[in-house]
Amino acid sequence: MSITKQQIIDGFRALQLRITTQLEAEDGLGHFREDAWERPGGGGGFSRIMEAGAVVEKGGVNFSAVHGHLPENITKALRVDNAEFLATGVSIVIHPNSPMVPIIHMNVRYFEMENGTWWFGGGIDLTPHYVIADDAQFFHAALKATCDKTDPAFYSKFKLWADDYFYIKHRKETRGIGGIFFDRLNEESGHTKHQLWDFVLAVGDTFAPTYRALMARHKEEKFTDIQRQWQLLRRGRYVEFNLVYDKGTKFGLDTDGRIESILMSLPTLASWVYDHKVEPNSEEEKTLSLLRKGVNWVD
Amino acid sequence: MSITKQQIIDGFRALQLRITTQLEAEDGLGHFREDAWERPGGGGGFSRIMEAGAVVEKGGVNFSAVHGHLPENITKALRVDNAEFLATGVSIVIHPNSPMVPIIHMNVRYFEMENGTWWFGGGIDLTPHYVIADDAQFFHAALKATCDKTDPAFYSKFKLWADDYFYIKHRKETRGIGGIFFDRLNEESGHTKHQLWDFVLAVGDTFAPTYRALMARHKEEKFTDIQRQWQLLRRGRYVEFNLVYDKGTKFGLDTDGRIESILMSLPTLASWVYDHKVEPNSEEEKTLSLLRKGVNWVD
Repeated sequence: MSITKQQIIDGFRALQLRITTQLEAEDGLGHFREDAWERPGGGGGFSRIMEAGAVVEKGGVNFSAVHGHLPENITKALRVDNAEFLATGVSIVIHPNSPMVPIIHMNVRYFEMENGTWWFGGGIDLTPHYVIADDAQFFHAALKATCDKTDPAFYSKFKLWADDYFYIKHRKETRGIGGIFFDRLNEESGHTKHQLWDFVLAVGDTFAPTYRALMARHKEEKFTDIQRQWQLLRRGRYVEFNLVYDKGTKFGLDTDGRIESILMSLPTLASWVYDHKVEPNSEEEKTLSLLRKGVNWVD
Repeated sequence: MSITKQQIIDGFRALQLRITTQLEAEDGLGHFREDAWERPGGGGGFSRIMEAGAVVEKGGVNFSAVHGHLPENITKALRVDNAEFLATGVSIVIHPNSPMVPIIHMNVRYFEMENGTWWFGGGIDLTPHYVIADDAQFFHAALKATCDKTDPAFYSKFKLWADDYFYIKHRKETRGIGGIFFDRLNEESGHTKHQLWDFVLAVGDTFAPTYRALMARHKEEKFTDIQRQWQLLRRGRYVEFNLVYDKGTKFGLDTDGRIESILMSLPTLASWVYDHKVEPNSEEEKTLSLLRKGVNWVD
């Protein structure tokens, strides 16, 4: 029997709660507050936000299930008819206090149209303020292990997709060290809807243990004012990506989504310095040299 | 005799220098550094940036004159043929240190195509962190006086246009108290090219004395940490407008413009707090209530 719409919605909501429980445990101080919201056009969501945690400066773990009719600019972009749609999923961005702990983003989502068209999408990508090879290998290996359980072709395909998607074109930089990204995943992949749902949930459940491990590795490390300043500049780039390129943000703004939930991805503080240059042979320069497409972290 | 392309280019460059001289005089401490740059596709510019002044935290006064062939996405958006173009102008954004001094933006520009199509565009708009009626009246009166010298219909038309243009749709807020905005201004306006050039230069020369007066009024005022925090939140909104809606920023990113010059509009520090609420009956609440279209400041 195929998975139902309601099972997917309930599954995403339960995933959200598993993740926030684990993040609170690792943070040790901060708690997620939950705001329920309704979308005027149909549906709504629960936003769970932590601010001023021990590790997390600002983090959002959002669940939403919205439905209704799409505005014309969206139906054109998605190449779909203007029928009733359902979009549901979990979206996460975590900005840590410390520049030694990476920023992380995760999204898993399901979309369906009245006419029966459906697909899953999602991904996880990591944005370290300082790229550390051990962390990058650990992170990509965890994503590969999750992908391989469903399809041995997924990781290399979705890793390439993430490199292309999380790219700040005007800076000629990737947002971070990438991860996986996939969209419009349906039966054409050779997998049933049930198998793909299991895959998407597995991606969702890869998030918390993987990020907890990275938090645990680095949360006690000391850092300097220079490193904090670098973190604020990297967050500036994160803001540029999210406001200029991110399709989820654009979809949210165009469909009259809840602004505070969509823009929870923006950090408490970010900085822009005119024509900032890194010191030669510094850790900052090394990081910049690794913010490019096509780095193979798993072999 | 009509004005030539070269006279316009030279006129904008001279305007840039008049403005930076006046801003340095009012700041009293900061100096503009100048970076010359070339555009791979043709032309270039001079960016003049001040950081860490006495009044100006970060300010850019950019001159550019770029030419070449437009990418297809731009020719479509502008509804023009893919002929050789020239775009030249002066663009300014000033972020002051103090929340008591407003942010200001000015742009004056000239665009022409190989086939003879040409137009002027531009505007000045003010973004006070705290809206003060006296300042808003003074600012709009100065713009109206400049407009009235060329055409008594200009101010009310261009004021309305600014209200519509400088609007953060997803926040349902204007960016500030508006000002004037105009585009595609050519002979169809009933004025000659020479008259319009004089008007555009007059707009450019309205900038410095008007902003100097506002700097002088407020630069010595004390402010609290709460007011500084509010400034960083308002700057967050400024970043949202510039990265999501501003056509000049989009044109620059899409035409492979110089990134550091385009994004000089972004502040040294900006902040986003989840679901921030202002205190009832506070100055912050009063400011929010005035960030809307259709406020008449001159009568």
